[in-house]
Amino acid sequence: MNQTFNSRLLDTAVAELSKLPGIGRKTALRLALHLLRRDPEEAEALGHAIIDMRSNICYCSRCHNISESPVCAICSDSSRDASTVCVVENVKDVITVEATREHRGLYHVLGGVISPLDGVSPSDLEIDSLVKRVRNEGIREVILALSPTMEGDTTNYYIFRKLAPLDVEITILARGVSIGNELEYTDELTLGRSILNRIPFRDTFSS
Amino acid sequence: MNQTFNSRLLDTAVAELSKLPGIGRKTALRLALHLLRRDPEEAEALGHAIIDMRSNICYCSRCHNISESPVCAICSDSSRDASTVCVVENVKDVITVEATREHRGLYHVLGGVISPLDGVSPSDLEIDSLVKRVRNEGIREVILALSPTMEGDTTNYYIFRKLAPLDVEITILARGVSIGNELEYTDELTLGRSILNRIPFRDTFSS
Repeated sequence: MNQTFNSRLLDTAVAELSKLPGIGRKTALRLALHLLRRDPEEAEALGHAIIDMRSNICYCSRCHNISESPVCAICSDSSRDASTVCVVENVKDVITVEATREHRGLYHVLGGVISPLDGVSPSDLEIDSLVKRVRNEGIREVILALSPTMEGDTTNYYIFRKLAPLDVEITILARGVSIGNELEYTDELTLGRSILNRIPFRDTFSS
Repeated sequence: MNQTFNSRLLDTAVAELSKLPGIGRKTALRLALHLLRRDPEEAEALGHAIIDMRSNICYCSRCHNISESPVCAICSDSSRDASTVCVVENVKDVITVEATREHRGLYHVLGGVISPLDGVSPSDLEIDSLVKRVRNEGIREVILALSPTMEGDTTNYYIFRKLAPLDVEITILARGVSIGNELEYTDELTLGRSILNRIPFRDTFSS
């Protein structure tokens, strides 16, 4: 369906909007017509916000999170614990972990996980720079917070082997039943592991 | 949830994107991070397309459809039949009718339908300008293509009464379209047939 809307400008806006993931031509047209009905200032604010974001956000030279300066806001925050580094797959996961407010250390964004099927090898990821940070920045604990998938586990093991010779504690996210979920919907593997790795009830009081 | 993403630029982009209808903060963040992963040119094209569209699209002085010049592309198209005018509720409906390729005449966009509950009275709509067009432009047929709803029918009848003294044929979409549905959700085939099988408004009184 390559219909045009009798306006080159509207056609262009719809074409650009429908390049966004999950937005088809119908939705793009709805969004464009919505913007045409609103104040010009609203479309201008949206347009400039997109352009400014893309042209001014770069990546932190230390942790590879998004940043507006060579070193990001989290890395520059002296109130955070620089001796604990949480390793995540991507920028989105930094935001996800930050939302829990449970991690007060720094981050290290890998840029993906090892996945031979997708052609992602360790050299495509920020693993060497992690090893360098552990060596030079006095890091005492590395928390592996990758997705508990086959690729995540492979990457965890690769990083573990790389860091093993160094004097650093390597921890991993607790695996178990999700809080608030019905037990019957928990998959068997997770539930089985949770039984094997059960913890003293007493320890749950503190959290 | 008013969490920030440790970047004012990303915060702003997400805030502006989530003002769009049907786009919440989670989706807005996904779109913003998608743009950050793509070429800067892509974000720039999107941003400029939105700004250019909003600041340069105006409304046709004749039919009130969107336009890039004082008179729109459809009204200026000499190959179209200027003696037949299709009356629609809004800009979206022009696109919907155009997609059927069954109407080769011009349009007249009312800007809404009469709806006392929503405070929309005939004077809020482009009805007087329609009467003026019928009087001055040698229009021989007015096709009423409003949504087959209570408000659409009320508006149809109001326009019929206004145009009755003039020498013009008034037709209405064949009632093949499902009553109670919005026009934009009608499939193209049904809508196209309804234009081909349009009937004198007078004939609808008996049903």
